[in-house]
Amino acid sequence: MSSTFGDRIRMTIFGESHGPSIGIVLDGLPAGVPLDLAAIEKEMKRRAPGQSKLATPRKETDSFTLESGFFEGRTTGMALCARIENHNAHSKDYSLLKDVMRPGHGDYPGFVKFHGANDYRGGGSFSGRLTAPLVFAGAVAKQLLAKEGITVGAHIAAIAGIRDRAFDPCGESRETLLGLAANSLPVLDGSVRGPMADAITAARAEKDSVGGVIECMAIGVPVGLGEPYFDSVESRLSHALFSVPAVKAVAFGDGFALASMRGSEANDPMILRQDRVACTTNHNGGILGGISNGMPIVFRVAVKPTPSIGKTQHTVNVRTREETTLEVTGRHDPCVVPRAVPVIEAVTAWTLLDLYYLMKRG
Amino acid sequence: MSSTFGDRIRMTIFGESHGPSIGIVLDGLPAGVPLDLAAIEKEMKRRAPGQSKLATPRKETDSFTLESGFFEGRTTGMALCARIENHNAHSKDYSLLKDVMRPGHGDYPGFVKFHGANDYRGGGSFSGRLTAPLVFAGAVAKQLLAKEGITVGAHIAAIAGIRDRAFDPCGESRETLLGLAANSLPVLDGSVRGPMADAITAARAEKDSVGGVIECMAIGVPVGLGEPYFDSVESRLSHALFSVPAVKAVAFGDGFALASMRGSEANDPMILRQDRVACTTNHNGGILGGISNGMPIVFRVAVKPTPSIGKTQHTVNVRTREETTLEVTGRHDPCVVPRAVPVIEAVTAWTLLDLYYLMKRG
Amino acid sequence: MSSTFGDRIRMTIFGESHGPSIGIVLDGLPAGVPLDLAAIEKEMKRRAPGQSKLATPRKETDSFTLESGFFEGRTTGMALCARIENHNAHSKDYSLLKDVMRPGHGDYPGFVKFHGANDYRGGGSFSGRLTAPLVFAGAVAKQLLAKEGITVGAHIAAIAGIRDRAFDPCGESRETLLGLAANSLPVLDGSVRGPMADAITAARAEKDSVGGVIECMAIGVPVGLGEPYFDSVESRLSHALFSVPAVKAVAFGDGFALASMRGSEANDPMILRQDRVACTTNHNGGILGGISNGMPIVFRVAVKPTPSIGKTQHTVNVRTREETTLEVTGRHDPCVVPRAVPVIEAVTAWTLLDLYYLMKRG
Amino acid sequence: MSSTFGDRIRMTIFGESHGPSIGIVLDGLPAGVPLDLAAIEKEMKRRAPGQSKLATPRKETDSFTLESGFFEGRTTGMALCARIENHNAHSKDYSLLKDVMRPGHGDYPGFVKFHGANDYRGGGSFSGRLTAPLVFAGAVAKQLLAKEGITVGAHIAAIAGIRDRAFDPCGESRETLLGLAANSLPVLDGSVRGPMADAITAARAEKDSVGGVIECMAIGVPVGLGEPYFDSVESRLSHALFSVPAVKAVAFGDGFALASMRGSEANDPMILRQDRVACTTNHNGGILGGISNGMPIVFRVAVKPTPSIGKTQHTVNVRTREETTLEVTGRHDPCVVPRAVPVIEAVTAWTLLDLYYLMKRG
Repeated sequence: MSSTFGDRIRMTIFGESHGPSIGIVLDGLPAGVPLDLAAIEKEMKRRAPGQSKLATPRKETDSFTLESGFFEGRTTGMALCARIENHNAHSKDYSLLKDVMRPGHGDYPGFVKFHGANDYRGGGSFSGRLTAPLVFAGAVAKQLLAKEGITVGAHIAAIAGIRDRAFDPCGESRETLLGLAANSLPVLDGSVRGPMADAITAARAEKDSVGGVIECMAIGVPVGLGEPYFDSVESRLSHALFSVPAVKAVAFGDGFALASMRGSEANDPMILRQDRVACTTNHNGGILGGISNGMPIVFRVAVKPTPSIGKTQHTVNVRTREETTLEVTGRHDPCVVPRAVPVIEAVTAWTLLDLYYLMKRG
Repeated sequence: MSSTFGDRIRMTIFGESHGPSIGIVLDGLPAGVPLDLAAIEKEMKRRAPGQSKLATPRKETDSFTLESGFFEGRTTGMALCARIENHNAHSKDYSLLKDVMRPGHGDYPGFVKFHGANDYRGGGSFSGRLTAPLVFAGAVAKQLLAKEGITVGAHIAAIAGIRDRAFDPCGESRETLLGLAANSLPVLDGSVRGPMADAITAARAEKDSVGGVIECMAIGVPVGLGEPYFDSVESRLSHALFSVPAVKAVAFGDGFALASMRGSEANDPMILRQDRVACTTNHNGGILGGISNGMPIVFRVAVKPTPSIGKTQHTVNVRTREETTLEVTGRHDPCVVPRAVPVIEAVTAWTLLDLYYLMKRG
Repeated sequence: MSSTFGDRIRMTIFGESHGPSIGIVLDGLPAGVPLDLAAIEKEMKRRAPGQSKLATPRKETDSFTLESGFFEGRTTGMALCARIENHNAHSKDYSLLKDVMRPGHGDYPGFVKFHGANDYRGGGSFSGRLTAPLVFAGAVAKQLLAKEGITVGAHIAAIAGIRDRAFDPCGESRETLLGLAANSLPVLDGSVRGPMADAITAARAEKDSVGGVIECMAIGVPVGLGEPYFDSVESRLSHALFSVPAVKAVAFGDGFALASMRGSEANDPMILRQDRVACTTNHNGGILGGISNGMPIVFRVAVKPTPSIGKTQHTVNVRTREETTLEVTGRHDPCVVPRAVPVIEAVTAWTLLDLYYLMKRG
Repeated sequence: MSSTFGDRIRMTIFGESHGPSIGIVLDGLPAGVPLDLAAIEKEMKRRAPGQSKLATPRKETDSFTLESGFFEGRTTGMALCARIENHNAHSKDYSLLKDVMRPGHGDYPGFVKFHGANDYRGGGSFSGRLTAPLVFAGAVAKQLLAKEGITVGAHIAAIAGIRDRAFDPCGESRETLLGLAANSLPVLDGSVRGPMADAITAARAEKDSVGGVIECMAIGVPVGLGEPYFDSVESRLSHALFSVPAVKAVAFGDGFALASMRGSEANDPMILRQDRVACTTNHNGGILGGISNGMPIVFRVAVKPTPSIGKTQHTVNVRTREETTLEVTGRHDPCVVPRAVPVIEAVTAWTLLDLYYLMKRG
């Protein structure tokens, strides 16, 4: 297990969805910084289950307590621990899954890796529930990034093949990026919201699930973030993004489309804009040679469909060593993409803040 | 700068393409392991310039000397340092580039980040030349992986939009994976080699460049590699892959296509094959919940077209603070994809070996 | 702040003595290991305040809850979080200390480092209370070391200049090492217990404090622990030991006495004992070239007298920028040495287990 | 093996004393910093063999070449690699030592750890020769510390029991600290130089060796260095110091003497001196709660006598599994203390610079 992420600032997560609590320890935060706890709660609510009729009927308030590192309204410079109690676990839903592996899920490799000792209830370490502390960390990071003029926002670029319009790669406004959080289906083109919702509802009705694409942007990022060779912006961000369950692909700028372009198309021409160097296009997603170039950082991630589905699937019982079939019951999201949006924003904010502190040295 | 990568085994690279030498220090290798130096040289040659008339006419033999860590034909358990002298550098080609930034290249963010102190000749830290030590590390890792029955191989999935057939996601043979190295345009379907070569030649003739896609596979990977949450196989591999210059996207298994699938399509049904658990499909690229599941690990990376092109481009002179145009001269590859293939294999081999050692504990 | 320690196994501590709770997250533990919780509680009790009339009258039961990583009596392979609620904090005792710095204490550098935002109550990050989670970690490590035949034990080598007999450097029995835990003043020669207790009582009566020396030994340590150059056994152990508040010196084997010896005296002659290589003396404390040599690991640490004393001291008020005097009130230990013994054992056990896992590779 | 040390700045060493070269890669240095190469050479010479008739007659010029990271007289921000060729190795001196273990030396644990694959010539990884790159790193660090007003210096506090006067713990002048480097037996009281030299000469005549104590001081250190809990100044410094071969004890401030003091003696009274907070004594060696308090950092290390001696010793032949005797021939220092002085300064300078960068954040 590797429960810690980051360099100058480090987060350590703990918890299983069916244990007493989950939480996170943030280390390396500056001292004396006021935190807007209401804003953090708001972020947590974006990810929490039970917020939308499209999502799981499971209800978790995900309200957190600060155990340490916060005193008289400000960070103390010590490790900041936030803890979230688990309330709404239905452990009986999972008893069958001790032996019968869910296809597409981490059950089987987890069973082998941990010699059957893993907490099979709720997916154990692979549970999406552990993304709640990530959102906490991201909400803190966003407040610190805001002081530096950096804003992170994301939208659903696609669900079940239904596409929202893309971000303008040369930059969306701060208002646009922050405004996305207002809706549980955050899209730029409101007209796709209905069809997306219908696709989710249809999948649920058929005991199936759908996936999607999330596009994320950070504006206000100064030139110079990223530490080549091995800690390029892309390396660090992808490391964080692939830690989010269900993410299977990450593409910066024009991503795979760059592979078919000529250099003369892919290179972003450079100009002076009010004496600042800028590019007229942003095919490279704000990152050149692994370092931020001052343009918005923009990338897309593929989120696979939820593996826990009610449809009959062919699988294996690891105790009896027999093939069998499985219909996963329980309260699973037919589409985790909407709830994954704040998680993608969160790990992006955390990683950019860490790279920012790495760049800044006395 | 961040010149070290890995956890149980760590590589530290040094060097600039126009300095006296480049090299690498490998730390944490087991003691007493014989190394086949001829096999390492062969791997280095796959990447070295001047091997093909499609690539740069620059010639570097890339022959290495072992400075430490190797004694009487075996590793000593100490840090193993390999050094490659630079011989064929034409520094004059770069003098203009001190002030005039190449679009699409790390010149500008590097200039800002390092306050103009970076070695602008040959791209400094961003130079593809630093991938030579990576190939050395990968060649060592491949020999250690072979002892564990793990084989890594890659092919050109596309250049300039011309596509090779894809790997069978459920596994190619060891012979196929290793055989790819024999050709400087490693493809599965030999008939695409000619059109790919033509596309590169055409781009060069037009003072332009082309990009492509590399697909990589590892077979023989046991169940259990990867340390969730934060060191999933995808997190670690993508971290390494995005350290390779020009890589802009990484997709595991079906990648972005998974975003449009239903769960019932994306989940890989599980069966028993000779009492071993296996999947009948491999949409997830051999990784579930961030952990290897015993199926081949398979992924694709997008390689952008070389930014250094002879065509006139619009850019900025950072000394005079004026807009200007640039026609990059010098001996640049019109397509780095073929030479990137062994580099992708190398960082994959290194990362998998590191994850293997992380998994194994006494 | 740096709240995480270890390499293959990592502990992350959080908490302040006057916040809601303190705790620890253990990462990287093997899965499926049964833990004897009663044995852990026993270890915690050795350190807990209120166990002896010689120590602080503050009472903390230091009972812990396991928040994660433990299921059906065994470790799950996930991060194991233990949490201890704070109950007996008297925050009013500390109000004066916000501005008036205690000499000999971390108050002043902490105030400067954290810009006055640190939780000044109870010493904040420097509080001895944070050693409770360390003892938890050590108690877990001891159970894992026991499986490998390794035993750690420590005694009070001196308090206020009153000396216990030293360990036989060539080894004490397992029973002797484990038996020390039975007494709150763990010594080898029971006759020194009375004088030591008298010295503590006398210091308390004079509103003063005393320090001491702790000697620690690990038996059963195999040859080969330690990773030179930079992670020698001495480097890692000293790193951990100096993290314990009040430790000011660490000496392995004969320590400073070696500086006055000749090589012919300091070298431990090697022999064969039942075909195993052994030494007839152990001046080097079981470590040669930074690596364990199979002899018992033995070292001593100096613990300075508690800085919080009732005697009038000259100091500074950082708010008014004036010199002033201070008489520290509150419930402070006149001697932390006895309660530090299990802490020294704990960080030793943790570090040796980490080095053991580092040495073992599949 | 663990060949890398540091956090914000990292050094990676490589080499064996009988291989082609040894060297070091420094990563994370700021870009654009001019380096005084002559000053570095001077530091290297202090440690190099053959400088004094008291030391080994082995001659190594220890002249280095810069392979990367240095361009037009300044650091580039890339990894800076310095390499030192080995010229004066007499490998035949070591052939016997492949099988017959030197008492007091890392031979035996190294043989077991590396399964006999280690380069036994010259002590392999444990060779004092690897301290040459450490001095290079320290010389670079000293130049960067000088910009921040921090000076590091050390003297021989004792050799063979003959004692120099101690540093004034409240501070020596910059001139005194720097002036020590002028003599190959750096002491404060010149009258002890003769007796120390005589003690070394006498030991050599008797085919024996002597050890000693080095005292080191850093002045100008600002308040706030050190990252408690686990990266206190003491933890980091001791970690580095115990990486230096032959160091067996480290004591900060009054060290073990603190264990016999009362709190009222050990606490350093605080005053205002020109509106700056200071202490009137410095029993705590400039570190409180693991953080620098603005007073000079001062500590002592015990250096054991060279284990390689000509006197007959009892030991074991690991090939024949028989007890035997050994008289070590070859060109060994009868006392490594004088040459260890610049090494102790070097790792201290490196560690303090790293802690300085850790403290400074944008």
